[in-house]
Amino acid sequence: MDIIAQLRDIVGAAHVLTGPDTAPYCDDWTGKYQSDPLAVVRPADTAGVSAVLKLANDTGTPIVPASGRTGLNGGAYADGAAVMLSLERLNTIREIRPAARVAIVGAGVILSQLHEAVEQHDLVFPLTFGAKGSAMIGGALSTNAGGSNVLRYGSTRHLCLGLEVVLADGRMMDLMSELHKDNSGYDLKDLMIGAEGTLGIITAAVLKLAPKPRAYATAMVAAPDLPGALSLLNRLQIATGGAVEAFEFMPRRYIEANLARFPDGREPFEAPHEVNVMVEVGALAPRDATPGEIGSVPIVDYLEEVLAEAMEDGAVLDAVVARNEAQRRAMWQRREQAAEVNMDGRPLIQNDVALPLDHVAPFLDRAAAMLAEADPGANSMYVAHLGDGNVHYTVYPAATDPAAHDAITERVEDLVLSLGGSFSAEHGIGLSKKPSMARRKNPVALEVMRAIKAALDPKGILNPGKVLPD
Amino acid sequence: MDIIAQLRDIVGAAHVLTGPDTAPYCDDWTGKYQSDPLAVVRPADTAGVSAVLKLANDTGTPIVPASGRTGLNGGAYADGAAVMLSLERLNTIREIRPAARVAIVGAGVILSQLHEAVEQHDLVFPLTFGAKGSAMIGGALSTNAGGSNVLRYGSTRHLCLGLEVVLADGRMMDLMSELHKDNSGYDLKDLMIGAEGTLGIITAAVLKLAPKPRAYATAMVAAPDLPGALSLLNRLQIATGGAVEAFEFMPRRYIEANLARFPDGREPFEAPHEVNVMVEVGALAPRDATPGEIGSVPIVDYLEEVLAEAMEDGAVLDAVVARNEAQRRAMWQRREQAAEVNMDGRPLIQNDVALPLDHVAPFLDRAAAMLAEADPGANSMYVAHLGDGNVHYTVYPAATDPAAHDAITERVEDLVLSLGGSFSAEHGIGLSKKPSMARRKNPVALEVMRAIKAALDPKGILNPGKVLPD
Repeated sequence: MDIIAQLRDIVGAAHVLTGPDTAPYCDDWTGKYQSDPLAVVRPADTAGVSAVLKLANDTGTPIVPASGRTGLNGGAYADGAAVMLSLERLNTIREIRPAARVAIVGAGVILSQLHEAVEQHDLVFPLTFGAKGSAMIGGALSTNAGGSNVLRYGSTRHLCLGLEVVLADGRMMDLMSELHKDNSGYDLKDLMIGAEGTLGIITAAVLKLAPKPRAYATAMVAAPDLPGALSLLNRLQIATGGAVEAFEFMPRRYIEANLARFPDGREPFEAPHEVNVMVEVGALAPRDATPGEIGSVPIVDYLEEVLAEAMEDGAVLDAVVARNEAQRRAMWQRREQAAEVNMDGRPLIQNDVALPLDHVAPFLDRAAAMLAEADPGANSMYVAHLGDGNVHYTVYPAATDPAAHDAITERVEDLVLSLGGSFSAEHGIGLSKKPSMARRKNPVALEVMRAIKAALDPKGILNPGKVLPD
Repeated sequence: MDIIAQLRDIVGAAHVLTGPDTAPYCDDWTGKYQSDPLAVVRPADTAGVSAVLKLANDTGTPIVPASGRTGLNGGAYADGAAVMLSLERLNTIREIRPAARVAIVGAGVILSQLHEAVEQHDLVFPLTFGAKGSAMIGGALSTNAGGSNVLRYGSTRHLCLGLEVVLADGRMMDLMSELHKDNSGYDLKDLMIGAEGTLGIITAAVLKLAPKPRAYATAMVAAPDLPGALSLLNRLQIATGGAVEAFEFMPRRYIEANLARFPDGREPFEAPHEVNVMVEVGALAPRDATPGEIGSVPIVDYLEEVLAEAMEDGAVLDAVVARNEAQRRAMWQRREQAAEVNMDGRPLIQNDVALPLDHVAPFLDRAAAMLAEADPGANSMYVAHLGDGNVHYTVYPAATDPAAHDAITERVEDLVLSLGGSFSAEHGIGLSKKPSMARRKNPVALEVMRAIKAALDPKGILNPGKVLPD
């Protein structure tokens, strides 16, 4: 019996797609990787995933896991020999336990679906980024996704207490702890998170929820320069006792590109400024949200007060505080459209880099100088999660030679490393960052990763060719 | 040349101790494990650790890493065939970078030494527990130590950004990232943390620092019962916007045992209460620390106000707020003496268990009933980090038969697991919890741990016989 027939036996014929039926799964959001899988298989549950993997391991069939396929590095690319394993049917929110502040979810639950479900309990799942309407929990865990709230809540890894994982040979590993302390052997949970499906397939997770802030104060702020923006962040953290949830830098060139791409948008300020920051503060204490209570300072007034003081000092050039939810949403939308705005030029060279906070400004200066020399006709675009040093730096080269593109990537990485940064902040490695892994990662660490991969997936069936350089 | 001579060549004769000279390294704090190593070797730096491990790997010599040797599960026990590798000379604080809020330290730095060094910069390294005057960073990382501030800051794992690790064969792996986002391959850092030296020897770390709260408000509170104490925790978290740093439960029996052991101590309240909690709130915002500023509510007055309201409701039976640092220290001291108080009876059966927060009370009730039936002459003692569900539950059996002791451990674990808990919260596995690992850990997870151990330490020289059941 051929592999397709065997897969049909496991998950039902309706859930094994071949030929043109696989088309909806083959596009890549970046346009760089067009998949062509042998089949797309959609198991209904963990047992189905286990049976598919056992078959794949027995037959040496490559398996490429896919959830929302919003990744930016080709991690879900499947070639003609591979079976794409879609986790979309594992989309059950198994349980929300408000008292324990946990949600137990399948890997196929869409991020915004979880956001809506927990909001009813006055809780939040703090992970958020532009693709939240399509991205699934399994993919967010497998890439250790970051986003705009890492500053306050950490990345996906820090929001996960437990996992259910199916190993290469189909064995199910139950790590579904709900505990905040659990020192029982090696930390297999964090090993699986961020491994992009190369060590096992995440099928379910226990996620941490946080109390929903009683109020948000959101503002667009113009700072005199980037170091000034960082000082403002520290000032806001001190003033609010560490309640800053997002601190998103958008240069003038981004504001302009955004307005060109989304003409319904509006200028953030009356006059244009070079350094624009969206800041959001989340207030947990009643005294920050309800006027008239103990020491009442409603958080929106308070933020406005702090920003007004900063304007008097010259630390802030202009500021607009959102006075209703529509204004707040518009501020977020401007930032969340970044991926679409960045993708508009082709070809493009994407760099998702992290730097020590105080090295973001020198990085941007030196990158501009480098680019002017390396490819004088090139343009660049960037936004940054400034609160955690993560810059999304996109280059639109004028040079057409792929070798010239690679050279630009290398020079960006040289700059990043010379400033103590990382060539991969929150998008992972997938296919497109493998050359960077080979060049930049500590060689002993790469050897250890290969040893672990060989130990857990000896036949190399799990997302082959991803993450680890050859 | 014999191994001792070779070790002397590497680290110098003065730092290879044998025979009676090893005595200071052989005692175990719990009194259960008396080591008898072939030698104690004290390399001066990472290169020395690397050379020692290369030799050990080439000769198949077991290596037992030791730092402050304050562990409670025999993780640093060395038998006559093993060389004990003391990290005490790697005691340099390499760098404190206040702006980046990181400290770069050797594995032999003592926890309280780091506390003092960072305080000068108005920063804190939040990890704290009773043994902080002896425990070293390397041991805290290797056991993923918890302590009293996990509620707000997480355990050691969450306070570590980067590691330097020497592998079994002496290769040095540089994972010394200072970044908050760094998705470049598998999470080897977290795999090494909590592995108790069985996968590699941690020689240095990049640790996260936090702003020193501008003021602390610390109180002893008597709650009507345990569920009432949990409600009080939630009430305090809401009132302070999540600023509770410690929430430590001490039953009446602990207060009495503490006063018997330390006669200089004082009763926490005028009348005795069953449920005593030490609570500490750390205030970051100026308005909580400095009277007269925006919305000024100095945090000590504010905590007193919130507790007074709770007393009016009957949610609190009595409360004493520390009004100076001496009173605050006395409250902490009462709690930090717990390990010494617990160790006073012999024999003892220690259980470091974690439970979902709302299951701590049923656990204690059922454990008492179980004990009355299993060993009617037994006593028990416990304290709990109630804010994270971690109970230190010690049994003093009347039964003298070791099999009866094991049976009690098993029944405690049965109870913990039936309530969704873990048999090991923050003390790790070492030797004493290996039977529990064998019985209680997911068998597939154990297989994966063994596969990783075999891949990274094929000759099995690193802390053999620890963590993984045979």
